[in-house]
Amino acid sequence: MSHPVLIVGGGPAGLSAAQALAAAGQASVLVDKAEQLGGAPILSGYARLVPSREWARDAIGGMVERVTGDKLITVHLDTTVKTLDGKPGDFSAELSDGSKVEAGAVILATGFTHFDSVNKPEWGFGTYPDVVTTTQVEQMISSGAGVRCPSDGRAPERVAILLCVGSRDRQIGREWCSKICCTVSSNLAMEIREELPNCNVYIYYMDIRTFGLYEDLYYWESQETHKVKYIKARIAEVTSDGKCLIVKGEDTLVKRPITIPFDMVVHAIGMDPNVDNLTLSAVFGVELEKHGHIAKAPSYSAMSATSRPGVFVAGAATGPETIDDSIAQGQSAAMAALTLVRAPAREAAE
Amino acid sequence: MSHPVLIVGGGPAGLSAAQALAAAGQASVLVDKAEQLGGAPILSGYARLVPSREWARDAIGGMVERVTGDKLITVHLDTTVKTLDGKPGDFSAELSDGSKVEAGAVILATGFTHFDSVNKPEWGFGTYPDVVTTTQVEQMISSGAGVRCPSDGRAPERVAILLCVGSRDRQIGREWCSKICCTVSSNLAMEIREELPNCNVYIYYMDIRTFGLYEDLYYWESQETHKVKYIKARIAEVTSDGKCLIVKGEDTLVKRPITIPFDMVVHAIGMDPNVDNLTLSAVFGVELEKHGHIAKAPSYSAMSATSRPGVFVAGAATGPETIDDSIAQGQSAAMAALTLVRAPAREAAE
Repeated sequence: MSHPVLIVGGGPAGLSAAQALAAAGQASVLVDKAEQLGGAPILSGYARLVPSREWARDAIGGMVERVTGDKLITVHLDTTVKTLDGKPGDFSAELSDGSKVEAGAVILATGFTHFDSVNKPEWGFGTYPDVVTTTQVEQMISSGAGVRCPSDGRAPERVAILLCVGSRDRQIGREWCSKICCTVSSNLAMEIREELPNCNVYIYYMDIRTFGLYEDLYYWESQETHKVKYIKARIAEVTSDGKCLIVKGEDTLVKRPITIPFDMVVHAIGMDPNVDNLTLSAVFGVELEKHGHIAKAPSYSAMSATSRPGVFVAGAATGPETIDDSIAQGQSAAMAALTLVRAPAREAAE
Repeated sequence: MSHPVLIVGGGPAGLSAAQALAAAGQASVLVDKAEQLGGAPILSGYARLVPSREWARDAIGGMVERVTGDKLITVHLDTTVKTLDGKPGDFSAELSDGSKVEAGAVILATGFTHFDSVNKPEWGFGTYPDVVTTTQVEQMISSGAGVRCPSDGRAPERVAILLCVGSRDRQIGREWCSKICCTVSSNLAMEIREELPNCNVYIYYMDIRTFGLYEDLYYWESQETHKVKYIKARIAEVTSDGKCLIVKGEDTLVKRPITIPFDMVVHAIGMDPNVDNLTLSAVFGVELEKHGHIAKAPSYSAMSATSRPGVFVAGAATGPETIDDSIAQGQSAAMAALTLVRAPAREAAE
């Protein structure tokens, strides 16, 4: 009997890896530092997901239920991995709860950290209460409270969504694109318009990156059915005139300065490397790429491989990723781990 | 013993599905209409792939070798599926080579068809020999011939790459974005600059969609290290003055008409639904989405599912997709198929 696979992180990628292994009859041990499974969609209270439009609590919550109920999956919550010794097929991990796990392979599904908008101070977050993040708007919707201005609880009549907050911004050390914020913002804009039909929603962008089929499902649908307006602009600052928030910048298509009042400004926050990545790098002996994400081998002969043999990686741990692709990558890493732990058995059988 | 899984299509998604099933000890039958495995990257002679920069012949060729050498995978080339009867766990397929396959589940990995640039006649393809497609440039590079003007074999000194040819274009019935052409074009531009350091390369775009970590690996790297120039423009037509190709349009950032001479114009062609999709839809009894791609269930509880139970789908068959994600989705579909064919065995064992 081979050792179980150790999976670190119980978000979409880790959950799907555990389910995939169980489907193949392979036991796994799933460790999460949080007190519940589900990762960002559950812990941050996301609303309806792109592209399924399922509620996060149903979609990812359903994955959590299936994992929790599976006899082949052992879950450790509120737990981290302290040390990992050994080699492919025969690892030994020490957990923070005192237990030890013998593992045939390891999958890091350790995800990302939301960009903290206080690192972009000129855009008003932390200064003005009605400057919020996409995550906060998700929470307003998923909680049932509805989209309201935090300062006084009123329904906003004019909302600006600013894209690329903590993404594509070299001034603050974030060169990467966070991949999904354009589409998520289109989706949220439609949600706001559905709840508040009299509210005007503007999206300020550098490039609209609703790739693939998201193009008409989100970009065109939001404009044509929901009358969301898109403005290519370079935003300089968000201030207040005491009554309204004021977005200042330049419309880069008409080359004119813009100064526009809003009731609410939403930061479409990007995906930072997990704040724990330096620790994870040290504990698991895996290299990080230059931005601080876990480095993935760029080879089709070693899908999901990290720099340490037998330790695989999936999902947003490697850089900004969608939930769909995180789930597929979790399954991909599961296959890589399975190939490793089953290799001796398969060779013996043939 | 459960039936094998029937996989249709031997490109990246189908190859990875077969490998994943084999890793889990599950037999499969892989059917491809072409005379060799590998799908578009092999059949169309792609050069170095995004993002691994491995040569397609090595990267995808390696996958083909591993599949061909696996005892759990039976390959039928130059073969199509004529009929599919039965139900999940117990399908029966008739192949065009006269054989029959009993299958527990089916995976459609039937990919896409490259957009044919003759459907965009005002951009000069088919009229001027030096108007070529990204696929043709890939072939020039992968064959070792180098990037040369087809009309007279000279090395071009000025190359224009036009993005969104057959994508994001409602006039010709292609609303979708083809997801990877921006990044592929940045990659090709760098290849051209490496081979021909005196050649100026311009990329004409609507939005640059080098999402995620491609942002600095391709968009910034191509500009800063390789001096590729990006121009946001609306292209009206490609003509010739008898000596050079002339690209006419409007620079949408400075709002001025542009008329620029080039030696070579490259169409960054998009990904159409597979031309066989209507037939596939009829044979396999699966629904298509409105653009003609194979419809995938929008649910995390049924990843890879089509409208027909037991028939799964992966990769560009569902819409424009990257090779990486196609491979991960192939593995994802493999897990869905495995869960189905192994369910009775697992239930019996527990």
